[in-house]
Amino acid sequence: MYREKIKVLDCTIRDGGLINNHGFEHRLVREVYKGISEAGVDYMEMGYKNSDKFFSPDEYGPWKFCKDDDIRRVIDGIESNTKVSVMVDVGRVNLDDVKPADESPVDMIRTASYVKDIDKAINLVNHFADLGYETTINIMAISRDQGPELEEALHQIEEESKVNVVYCVDSFGTLYQETVEHLIKQFKSILKSRDVGFHSHNNQQLAFGNTIESIMHDANFLDGTIYGIGRAAGNCPLELLIGFLKNPKFDIRPIYDLISNEFLALREEIEWGYIIPYAITGMLNEHPRAAMALRKSKEKENYREFYESQLNIGLE
Amino acid sequence: MYREKIKVLDCTIRDGGLINNHGFEHRLVREVYKGISEAGVDYMEMGYKNSDKFFSPDEYGPWKFCKDDDIRRVIDGIESNTKVSVMVDVGRVNLDDVKPADESPVDMIRTASYVKDIDKAINLVNHFADLGYETTINIMAISRDQGPELEEALHQIEEESKVNVVYCVDSFGTLYQETVEHLIKQFKSILKSRDVGFHSHNNQQLAFGNTIESIMHDANFLDGTIYGIGRAAGNCPLELLIGFLKNPKFDIRPIYDLISNEFLALREEIEWGYIIPYAITGMLNEHPRAAMALRKSKEKENYREFYESQLNIGLE
Repeated sequence: MYREKIKVLDCTIRDGGLINNHGFEHRLVREVYKGISEAGVDYMEMGYKNSDKFFSPDEYGPWKFCKDDDIRRVIDGIESNTKVSVMVDVGRVNLDDVKPADESPVDMIRTASYVKDIDKAINLVNHFADLGYETTINIMAISRDQGPELEEALHQIEEESKVNVVYCVDSFGTLYQETVEHLIKQFKSILKSRDVGFHSHNNQQLAFGNTIESIMHDANFLDGTIYGIGRAAGNCPLELLIGFLKNPKFDIRPIYDLISNEFLALREEIEWGYIIPYAITGMLNEHPRAAMALRKSKEKENYREFYESQLNIGLE
Repeated sequence: MYREKIKVLDCTIRDGGLINNHGFEHRLVREVYKGISEAGVDYMEMGYKNSDKFFSPDEYGPWKFCKDDDIRRVIDGIESNTKVSVMVDVGRVNLDDVKPADESPVDMIRTASYVKDIDKAINLVNHFADLGYETTINIMAISRDQGPELEEALHQIEEESKVNVVYCVDSFGTLYQETVEHLIKQFKSILKSRDVGFHSHNNQQLAFGNTIESIMHDANFLDGTIYGIGRAAGNCPLELLIGFLKNPKFDIRPIYDLISNEFLALREEIEWGYIIPYAITGMLNEHPRAAMALRKSKEKENYREFYESQLNIGLE
């Protein structure tokens, strides 16, 4: 599958940071940036640009805040064509923290938003665009929000925003490929002047398959993470995605090195991947919150009981 | 996805047996049969019916031979609507070992064959059909065999065999969903009077997604294994497949119990799943043989070197 327009974004440190309070050590983030750059991946997302007014730096590591100076320490001196991305959540960013793009090491700001917050997201995005950044809106929890509100939001984005890319985000790892096809076609049909992206979660081992499905229907911005790291079940494994895309600009070997040298050991320290409670929440279109709590309890392998408790949510 | 004609076959013990020389203990096989029966799964495959002329019972466990008496010991006294299946390989079965169906606990015999051996497979299948068994032909390594020989083989099966079901088998875990679509459509268009099945391997985390793809194009016989156990990367996880199929006859909970109580511990003893060398052989359309050897060596985590060695296979 070679399509020149396709861009790959690695969000290893950003989505992986959700498992360890964004506390990855500087050395590791630098190694990842080095490998991602050698691999020819288009973007690397470092974390969230949240305000330290809302979150305490005592509780969270540097990649919750993504200060320009921390990013500079990671990338300085490394030869790279990889652009740097950060994510902001609606309502958690302090606009004073965001300098004009030409004074910052950041190239792209991605704004994560639920459908209901789309007006706020458009405001943010237009502000970032005016500062000179590439921008995206990442519409989260799409499996819960496929009604007329989504359609309206897409029209509003197309008409009122300066955004470059709109992502369809399967936050719960719930979608099967038929729904991915439906959604990407819907996005493309309304967002005529924008690119469409896809961000998957791997609860049901469908992150890679659904990403391929999105490519087939013309999504051009694709997220992956090294060895599939990410909250709960994790994301689309970057190494599989690069293996599928036959673009000669990619070199898969630095990703294998990072897995051999860093991520196998990391996986022993923090947990992600195919774990039944995450498969259950994905299948039932639920946030993985309850499954994450279960995994920290003594009942962590009581799958039947957990399944039954999740089934009952709708009946209470 | 509810389609009454869909049948699910659990091959936990058969494909899982490829990792431990078919040595699963009697107790475990009985527990699996009990759980599979409670879950309402249509078939359970116990192993291979190979001849002990060709393989030594000192080297292999009972599920390499699947003697009727061993199967009876497993299933006796358990209430069940689950049918029993065994697999034979072309050239490794002694026909004297196969009694008429009404004298055997086995309901279905599946014949595994490469395209080149299809004449022999048809001979075997017609013999088993005459003995009163349900029959399938499982065409292996399909990713290597998509030329006119495959088309000819399918025509021959349709015209000369008494087989009930023809499986498309992605032995190397190489297929992406576009090829699955192409193959299942081809199978269906030629095998007008037979059912079509799909058996996947999970090298690239596509076993479940590809199985869904096969369902979309009217494959009605689907293989899965508990917690995805199976040779190398393993197979389509049965619990995901049952979660997708909304047929009310299935109960997913006994499968969760088996994972909690048996398969988590088993996974600590024997290895299967998403492991980079298997992803590499899948991506490169190679048998996982070299990757399995690597996993038993000291170099087991040297992914870059292994990848380069596999790339060079074609150049030697």
